[in-house]
Amino acid sequence: MGEADIIQGVFAPLAAGFEGAFGLKDDAAAIRPPIGCDLVVTVDAVAAGVHFFSDDDAADIGWKALAVNVSDLIAKGAAPHAYVMSLAFPEMPDKAWLLGLATGLAEAQRAFGITLIGGDTDRRPGPVSITITAIGFVPAGQMVKRTTAKAGDHVFVSGALGDSALGLTLRRDGAMSAPFTVSAVHRSDLIGRYLRPRPPLALVPALRDFASASMDISDGLVKDLTRMADASGVGALIDCEALPLSDAARAVVASHPSEMASIATGGDDYQVLATVSPQHVAAFVAAACVAGVTVSEIGRIIVGHGVAILGPDGNAISFDSTGYDHF
Amino acid sequence: MGEADIIQGVFAPLAAGFEGAFGLKDDAAAIRPPIGCDLVVTVDAVAAGVHFFSDDDAADIGWKALAVNVSDLIAKGAAPHAYVMSLAFPEMPDKAWLLGLATGLAEAQRAFGITLIGGDTDRRPGPVSITITAIGFVPAGQMVKRTTAKAGDHVFVSGALGDSALGLTLRRDGAMSAPFTVSAVHRSDLIGRYLRPRPPLALVPALRDFASASMDISDGLVKDLTRMADASGVGALIDCEALPLSDAARAVVASHPSEMASIATGGDDYQVLATVSPQHVAAFVAAACVAGVTVSEIGRIIVGHGVAILGPDGNAISFDSTGYDHF
Repeated sequence: MGEADIIQGVFAPLAAGFEGAFGLKDDAAAIRPPIGCDLVVTVDAVAAGVHFFSDDDAADIGWKALAVNVSDLIAKGAAPHAYVMSLAFPEMPDKAWLLGLATGLAEAQRAFGITLIGGDTDRRPGPVSITITAIGFVPAGQMVKRTTAKAGDHVFVSGALGDSALGLTLRRDGAMSAPFTVSAVHRSDLIGRYLRPRPPLALVPALRDFASASMDISDGLVKDLTRMADASGVGALIDCEALPLSDAARAVVASHPSEMASIATGGDDYQVLATVSPQHVAAFVAAACVAGVTVSEIGRIIVGHGVAILGPDGNAISFDSTGYDHF
Repeated sequence: MGEADIIQGVFAPLAAGFEGAFGLKDDAAAIRPPIGCDLVVTVDAVAAGVHFFSDDDAADIGWKALAVNVSDLIAKGAAPHAYVMSLAFPEMPDKAWLLGLATGLAEAQRAFGITLIGGDTDRRPGPVSITITAIGFVPAGQMVKRTTAKAGDHVFVSGALGDSALGLTLRRDGAMSAPFTVSAVHRSDLIGRYLRPRPPLALVPALRDFASASMDISDGLVKDLTRMADASGVGALIDCEALPLSDAARAVVASHPSEMASIATGGDDYQVLATVSPQHVAAFVAAACVAGVTVSEIGRIIVGHGVAILGPDGNAISFDSTGYDHF
């Protein structure tokens, strides 16, 4: 297969139905923006050995590569629309692997309402990497920022935290030597959350209407909340007992309390971290409920600096690591 | 330096003045599209050892990474507007190198009227790579396609061909063993064209108004014209003697006629290949002239299939390689 065969044989079906993708037969794509909308643009790369395992199922890799980008759009209050993808391989992968990748991308496209419109493939040394630039729409001026949290705002997260970090430990655990034991069902749940993050698309309208600030949690709650607080010039107090846990994570923490650190600082949650001013809290919670998205209030924004996670005794908990750093 | 230091210390100045870049302090950027315009989106990656040399000047690497993307926008008739950049390094480069990269990007930004609005950095094994997604504007529905060349159209290219391919040979030529000799001035000219491609921004209005099809030449004239002809369901006849050569390339070919193959099939030209219907040829040439861009008529689109390059005797010339393939 040459580049043209890959594009037409494997990826062109992902662009079907999007007029401005030109069947992936042109050098660029065209997007017709709705009148009165801004485009929101984000880029994230995933690479084998860093963000996924080389032997992960190709469909899971495709899902994740797209979902981590959609996660940023959602947290900004943007409706996902289209993406371009740059692929790099050290050696041409076999067609079955590429078709698997495309299957996972197609599943994520359907789940998040986004379409492939263009890309680039290259052979070069190093790990397989997938760089996606995702584009969404918001009403003009309504992108939800990370820099606008205010003292007094309530802090919310969507979904459950830490599943993916625990799932990563289990996924790594060829020798079954993870520092905790779980049932087969919980093991499968947690690994599934690591492999297939599901950012809460349905939360977009609630974020746009009611969040004072928002970002996705990709490098761990503590690190990402610290970034939001720093960018907004405020501090945050978080109630450790309010962090939302899945049944599987709850079972792990019940028997291995030290794993709470994974919940608070592990990466790859791809949930939304949002702040909401007191007068909008009820409306935000109601809108999330109508959308079918679980949101949990986990603390408050305060005057000050830094993030403190308070334990049941009211004392701040400190963690060895505060989260994932890209360097 | 951590990721935040790189972004704020090195790259944030590149985003200055673009409101929707939010000083590179947010997770995404916002673009406000002009009413009645489509966005044109393209992505291209460059990597050390594949598209540039590790010891190229960092500023040249930055220039090229952006220019190769702008080249696609220009060939589509789009006015460059904004870009996002995903950087991958095996080890954190030193700050001087990063500042050099930013200097080259800044120079290209000024030359092409485009601004950095977001990005992503990651440490991973493999070569340094820079993946840029560039976004431009065209009046709605006016992106110039590669699939719409028609039999009878005249074939034009901008600028001069082959300088970059000859420059690459010289740039590689540590042992001064290139298959041709050149003066010091011509050597410097040719290497400069390889390091700093200059796609013809000023040609955008002429392309939009008069080209029936257009694409940039990145993988060599023969390969890219074949792609355009195939995509349009036509063939092409090219007059080898009409290919535009710089003084430096002309000197090389005069003494080493076999280097004509580099002119016709070498990559990295980043010039525009455009077709123009007979009734628009005079207006296209006049518009290019007014814009200060050299365009040369090199042949015709014909009913049929494939591309033939005709020599002075009227016979088709065949080349060992038809151009650069990404795999």
